[in-house]
Amino acid sequence: MTIRVGVIGTGGIGTDHATKLATTISGSTVSAVTDINRARAEEVARAVGGATVFADGFELITSDAVDAVVIASIGETHAAFTLACIEAGKPVLCEKPLAPTTPECVAVLEAEVTLGRRLVIVGFMRRYDPGYRQVKASLDGGAIGDALILHNVHRNPTVPESFTSFMTMTDSIIHEIDTSRWLLGEELTSVQVIPPKRTTKAFPHLQDPQFAAFTTESGILSTAEFFANCQYGYDVRCELVGSEGTASLVNPVVANQVTKATDSNVVPPDWRVRFGAAYHAELQAWISGLLRDEIVGPSAWDGYAATRVTESGVEAVKTGQRVAIDYIAKPDLYA
Amino acid sequence: MTIRVGVIGTGGIGTDHATKLATTISGSTVSAVTDINRARAEEVARAVGGATVFADGFELITSDAVDAVVIASIGETHAAFTLACIEAGKPVLCEKPLAPTTPECVAVLEAEVTLGRRLVIVGFMRRYDPGYRQVKASLDGGAIGDALILHNVHRNPTVPESFTSFMTMTDSIIHEIDTSRWLLGEELTSVQVIPPKRTTKAFPHLQDPQFAAFTTESGILSTAEFFANCQYGYDVRCELVGSEGTASLVNPVVANQVTKATDSNVVPPDWRVRFGAAYHAELQAWISGLLRDEIVGPSAWDGYAATRVTESGVEAVKTGQRVAIDYIAKPDLYA
Amino acid sequence: MTIRVGVIGTGGIGTDHATKLATTISGSTVSAVTDINRARAEEVARAVGGATVFADGFELITSDAVDAVVIASIGETHAAFTLACIEAGKPVLCEKPLAPTTPECVAVLEAEVTLGRRLVIVGFMRRYDPGYRQVKASLDGGAIGDALILHNVHRNPTVPESFTSFMTMTDSIIHEIDTSRWLLGEELTSVQVIPPKRTTKAFPHLQDPQFAAFTTESGILSTAEFFANCQYGYDVRCELVGSEGTASLVNPVVANQVTKATDSNVVPPDWRVRFGAAYHAELQAWISGLLRDEIVGPSAWDGYAATRVTESGVEAVKTGQRVAIDYIAKPDLYA
Amino acid sequence: MTIRVGVIGTGGIGTDHATKLATTISGSTVSAVTDINRARAEEVARAVGGATVFADGFELITSDAVDAVVIASIGETHAAFTLACIEAGKPVLCEKPLAPTTPECVAVLEAEVTLGRRLVIVGFMRRYDPGYRQVKASLDGGAIGDALILHNVHRNPTVPESFTSFMTMTDSIIHEIDTSRWLLGEELTSVQVIPPKRTTKAFPHLQDPQFAAFTTESGILSTAEFFANCQYGYDVRCELVGSEGTASLVNPVVANQVTKATDSNVVPPDWRVRFGAAYHAELQAWISGLLRDEIVGPSAWDGYAATRVTESGVEAVKTGQRVAIDYIAKPDLYA
Repeated sequence: MTIRVGVIGTGGIGTDHATKLATTISGSTVSAVTDINRARAEEVARAVGGATVFADGFELITSDAVDAVVIASIGETHAAFTLACIEAGKPVLCEKPLAPTTPECVAVLEAEVTLGRRLVIVGFMRRYDPGYRQVKASLDGGAIGDALILHNVHRNPTVPESFTSFMTMTDSIIHEIDTSRWLLGEELTSVQVIPPKRTTKAFPHLQDPQFAAFTTESGILSTAEFFANCQYGYDVRCELVGSEGTASLVNPVVANQVTKATDSNVVPPDWRVRFGAAYHAELQAWISGLLRDEIVGPSAWDGYAATRVTESGVEAVKTGQRVAIDYIAKPDLYA
Repeated sequence: MTIRVGVIGTGGIGTDHATKLATTISGSTVSAVTDINRARAEEVARAVGGATVFADGFELITSDAVDAVVIASIGETHAAFTLACIEAGKPVLCEKPLAPTTPECVAVLEAEVTLGRRLVIVGFMRRYDPGYRQVKASLDGGAIGDALILHNVHRNPTVPESFTSFMTMTDSIIHEIDTSRWLLGEELTSVQVIPPKRTTKAFPHLQDPQFAAFTTESGILSTAEFFANCQYGYDVRCELVGSEGTASLVNPVVANQVTKATDSNVVPPDWRVRFGAAYHAELQAWISGLLRDEIVGPSAWDGYAATRVTESGVEAVKTGQRVAIDYIAKPDLYA
Repeated sequence: MTIRVGVIGTGGIGTDHATKLATTISGSTVSAVTDINRARAEEVARAVGGATVFADGFELITSDAVDAVVIASIGETHAAFTLACIEAGKPVLCEKPLAPTTPECVAVLEAEVTLGRRLVIVGFMRRYDPGYRQVKASLDGGAIGDALILHNVHRNPTVPESFTSFMTMTDSIIHEIDTSRWLLGEELTSVQVIPPKRTTKAFPHLQDPQFAAFTTESGILSTAEFFANCQYGYDVRCELVGSEGTASLVNPVVANQVTKATDSNVVPPDWRVRFGAAYHAELQAWISGLLRDEIVGPSAWDGYAATRVTESGVEAVKTGQRVAIDYIAKPDLYA
Repeated sequence: MTIRVGVIGTGGIGTDHATKLATTISGSTVSAVTDINRARAEEVARAVGGATVFADGFELITSDAVDAVVIASIGETHAAFTLACIEAGKPVLCEKPLAPTTPECVAVLEAEVTLGRRLVIVGFMRRYDPGYRQVKASLDGGAIGDALILHNVHRNPTVPESFTSFMTMTDSIIHEIDTSRWLLGEELTSVQVIPPKRTTKAFPHLQDPQFAAFTTESGILSTAEFFANCQYGYDVRCELVGSEGTASLVNPVVANQVTKATDSNVVPPDWRVRFGAAYHAELQAWISGLLRDEIVGPSAWDGYAATRVTESGVEAVKTGQRVAIDYIAKPDLYA
């Protein structure tokens, strides 16, 4: 049996997902694509071996040729497409964010709760990164005691002028928010932002780098440095400090080179290289789950919680104050 | 389109290949299996979703339900099955060795040459390991100058009593032989063995560890320490020393842990963990190639050359002398 | 020529300094010691080869047998002894802090300014650590661009019950305060404290771990995690994030060991091991300087500034608010 | 008390020793120097604070102003000067080799045996390197089981035209010979040389790199790659493979830097940087020993054994054959 996937949005990440689903994921084909740029959609349709190009996401979702949906269009469209998938009873992988606003996320939760079963997963692929999983295993296995502090670093070589100080939260630190929740098994209950000195390599409107401090229900501190224009590469670091030890991500290195008085390793150039295997694992886990009628992946609740925190984070950026974060009651479906 | 693979031999590596081809490789299913232990074959047939169990490899090879063959039975059967695949015109991935003796390997070469095209690949999966590929890239890109020395280390936690001093060459160092040929782009022309002090953790009949020194056509020295009962884990190391620098494998590490005054990383427990991704990549490259009518992988010539060297290595173990290695003329098919 | 040093206070650090000055520092002997525990002072006097035991620090300072003084008694006594050294015209290495309060520190500054030349150095030995110096070289040499963020971590295996939440600032983070000032070449102008979840391994009165965020004159963010009871070892980390790259301390490792499926390095057990070479280098630089009539080491101004920041840090611990830090005008003597 | 040292030979290593003994070693001064280049000797004499310049080493040795002697002149002079020291009853640190030929070394042994006590140490400073000591501790503490193989690598950026293929043994691999003996606690009983492909960066007369395989009394294999013109830096590596684990030198790293997509550490440029601390420790241990009337350091027997092995190594270079190594009976003085 093969899962025929329809992909909404054929920009960078959408094309990447489509290519993997068509060529390296076992158990899936790409049967349908759509994009506001039709020419681009047609190009991807050909590249994946002849998918049908739909006029819009809603048509694609309801097509008989589509068993499951990937949403990789811009964030503002996510909730509507996700709701349409739930209405159509089709499994959907929605790229982060589930939606830019909490009311939209709540609407998705309510639709799933009404349906009575999960259909939605959200694309927090870092949960599939072997490094993050090993850090989590160090905590869950008891080796490092109780979690007390999580130090996160997230650096990107450069960003375009369109990248704003709010996007630091909604597009980037959202990953640290999800990994914090997932690693620690607790919701984040406050956020404060302490802006560092600005790099001269960023456009003037952007606070870059940025520094945020979150706390969790039990008081664990989770810090996050995000640096959008660090110049040198794509670098994600994470140290989980426990009461009896500490566990850290190590940038994946498979070989080194010594020349000209320097012992050197390569730093990943971008997220595609750093998290390529995590994206693959996320998609394979999703498809393999669908083949045995299970929904495998971060839930709509995870999507809601992350958006709730990023909203608070944006407020913290605006006010400079510590912002408390509260949540709706968690439906039993996500227990 | 899907490549329907028949798997001959459902021991450790055969089951591993069958599972990957059925569940994580894109573009393949497992349609047929066979094993001298029929119960075992039936178990694997069920696990991969219902493959047909054949009475023997020759029946499997000629079955209309089989598009391509994996040979993972014991080495003594490899040549006969490979020749049958060539006769049937079916692509075949033969696990190493291509055959235990050079006459058998030559028979395979001759069959392919007579056919006029390649059908055979040999399972030297290390060529697909990201670390080895990066070491090769350091050389091929010119960063480290001309290759002068290759230091290889290959350690295994333990081996059963059936493992012999000759198998050190034919089963284990054969991997270093292939990676030496592939990394350096030259045939090995001599081998000498210098036995180190024996561990007390091995069965008495086994020279363990063992140390071999190969030289290539242009005089490059390639050393190989093989340690069958190193106790501590599965550890493969490789340093390529060039005239302007050096490149080394790094054991893949994705996280570390600091507890009890110790900063520690995990060492792979076995080849499955260490080279799991390489086996996956090897199989995916093979299947993806077949889907576009190409044979992708180490050739029968690579299989022949490796066996030629291991034969000389066994002689070197017996005599303690430096043994020169010569080859038949390389057919144009493998140029 | 030999500098005859008198050591005030023969507790842990005082004995360590005395031993080094008597046995491994070139150009010094220990001619005099004193301690409130006279028996202890006599023991150390014998161990260093027969120093005179004085009844108190003031007698020691004015003795003709003393060319230079080390103050390693409790912090409350530092200012008085330092002022006595200035009055006696004798060079003095005062362990940190210069004094627990800024008025005392200011009195020392004024005494030196009145004298018209420096006699005082303060024992911020990390400035002599090869790792910190290399991080500074990465910044000063331009390799990493402009400093934007400094991440500091300072972990101790355990502390006694007498250790308080204020001492976190005055005894421990004072080191990060000095290294921040020294690495960045700027004064710290604000401090905020964000307490993480407490470990269960600390006495209940202690906030442990603690997290502080400082900013500098130009807006650089310097964070400091201090963990008094981390259990696993003594671990000091520092990453300096620049606009074009980053430089980090690496825990000094000279060998590793692979056993039982684990690749491991030793973590320093305590500050003596981790910074033993830095203490040696600090003392040798001081003595070598004295031999050529120079005062080499962190100045009284550095001591004042550090105390000024720790006072603000204590206020930040009490209030939970961001505390601005101001300074007296910097005398020309320290320009 | 102060040991007044006379230094014979003020070339690179002699000047280095003299400087350390005069400025950073506790308990010593340099009272006398001599060199065949008198101007050079006078320059060093001034630099160390006014040592007397002697016309030759024999005059220096017998001077009343000299308590102990460092021999850093060319190897051919070592035995004669060492014998003169023994005759004068003065402690002597002789740089390696003790002498270029075994008969000269035996003469030194006999002189010491006749005297009935040790006066001679040989400058095998690697025994004082913290990394080598930690590798030895891994073995001696039982963590890695029984020693089976020692892999050594010794690389130098470049050598002058005067460096010969024999000097590979007598000047360079002599260090690996001594560390092998010291780490393993056994004499080396055979040596074979397997020349790798030559670099084009060496003068044509030089076999570079070189590879040697030694065995010990109990059969342990100790390999040594020496590469005189590796271009990229000074790089000494050592892995001790035991029956239950392995221990390795790590190039000392105190900080790293990430810029331009590269995570990098500095490789030592030369032996002065790499082993500077080891030379310091060797000299301090020697002087501190003399102050309490002990001779601390590698013995004349160690010097003899190393020379015995290098002689056999030179024969192995000439013949290409495995050369067995035998020794005179070890005098009780060195038990």
